[in-house]
Amino acid sequence: MNVLIVHAHPEPQSFTAALRDQALRTLEAQGHQVQVSDLYAMQWNPVASAADFSSRENPDYLVYALEQRLGVKSQSIAADIRQELDKLLWADLLILNFPIFWFSTPAILKGWIDRVLVSGICYGGKRFYDQGGLSGKKALVSVTLGGREHMFGEGAIHGPLNDMLRPILRGTLAYVGFEVLEPFVAWHVPYISDQAREEFLVAYRHRLEQVADDLPIEFPRLSQFDEALYPLG
Amino acid sequence: MNVLIVHAHPEPQSFTAALRDQALRTLEAQGHQVQVSDLYAMQWNPVASAADFSSRENPDYLVYALEQRLGVKSQSIAADIRQELDKLLWADLLILNFPIFWFSTPAILKGWIDRVLVSGICYGGKRFYDQGGLSGKKALVSVTLGGREHMFGEGAIHGPLNDMLRPILRGTLAYVGFEVLEPFVAWHVPYISDQAREEFLVAYRHRLEQVADDLPIEFPRLSQFDEALYPLG
Repeated sequence: MNVLIVHAHPEPQSFTAALRDQALRTLEAQGHQVQVSDLYAMQWNPVASAADFSSRENPDYLVYALEQRLGVKSQSIAADIRQELDKLLWADLLILNFPIFWFSTPAILKGWIDRVLVSGICYGGKRFYDQGGLSGKKALVSVTLGGREHMFGEGAIHGPLNDMLRPILRGTLAYVGFEVLEPFVAWHVPYISDQAREEFLVAYRHRLEQVADDLPIEFPRLSQFDEALYPLG
Repeated sequence: MNVLIVHAHPEPQSFTAALRDQALRTLEAQGHQVQVSDLYAMQWNPVASAADFSSRENPDYLVYALEQRLGVKSQSIAADIRQELDKLLWADLLILNFPIFWFSTPAILKGWIDRVLVSGICYGGKRFYDQGGLSGKKALVSVTLGGREHMFGEGAIHGPLNDMLRPILRGTLAYVGFEVLEPFVAWHVPYISDQAREEFLVAYRHRLEQVADDLPIEFPRLSQFDEALYPLG
């Protein structure tokens, strides 16, 4: 497999970085090809804007998704976006590796999503969910957070973690066609012992060694909806 | 009331900007004080990083929330964060006004959340949800999106919009103590007539004229959980 790890953490020595390195080691030992996009190290620009296009279909009014669609075809899209898009299209497995900030991605990673998942290639028209432009690829979200496991789940104070991650898992990754695997979660990271951190690293290695056999989360399929996207039956 | 509108759209002439202006006009006509943070116009930096602190408690290892907590006290936190935090603390009502990007905020607004909702003031320890640092204030999310209304809701292809917005409504705004009002949503905006857009502006004006009477969405209360945050009863 070709694997792209997109990593976003402001501290280079973080445990989240240790998870990134564990994934790199484990997957390469399995014979996979791995590329890493370390967004903080790359000083990735997260702001989707008119500056992303060297020429515009409509210079007077920016419709970002429209300019993406045309910009990819005409090669007027920014070089940093094109480079990340090429890595994404190369990958069979995408790993998003980040600390939970406000039950979501750090802004720098949100901006990778905003800018790189371009209309016309990753989605567009009726190409979304199981018909998305990246169908056939898999995605894994690998996160660290401060909360404890019992604070998440049905009836827990924050509800199920996957419900908080819904815009990422369903609204982004499944939307563009990925088979989305169950997230890997390291809980309570700022407060735990080195031993407990080591156990998360071992669990992550075991998880990744068998990632090819993982069953994806179930999401809507376009065949369940009519042409106007009303539910069938 | 004091009202802070945080606006994020890459196109200055967008319909989302028209909603911002409608809110400004309507609320000022009602006698409220209004400030606007236009994140694209301000060239807001969305990336939480070590550069946000002129001096650090721990210069060798960045724990962002810890440095926020100390940096606010010692005045070593970045001036752009301090300015936005002062507006936030001044406001009785916060309006987040943005186009839905990937069922969430544009990255530039996510970075306002990451950097401005500082630990030690907005939350920290047991101060979250109804005990959050910003309790007593109200928040309204005002969004534009491309999808049609029938694509959202129980059984619809994307499920309920508020479920997609959960990390913002519950995980961010309710978490820091805001009373979170039902979002104002303008559907299918890129595809509708000027007349239909005008109807959304009128509906928004009516909504804002009565915003003081709005009932907030129900979220967890700390009194429903024990000291370790296990559910009671």
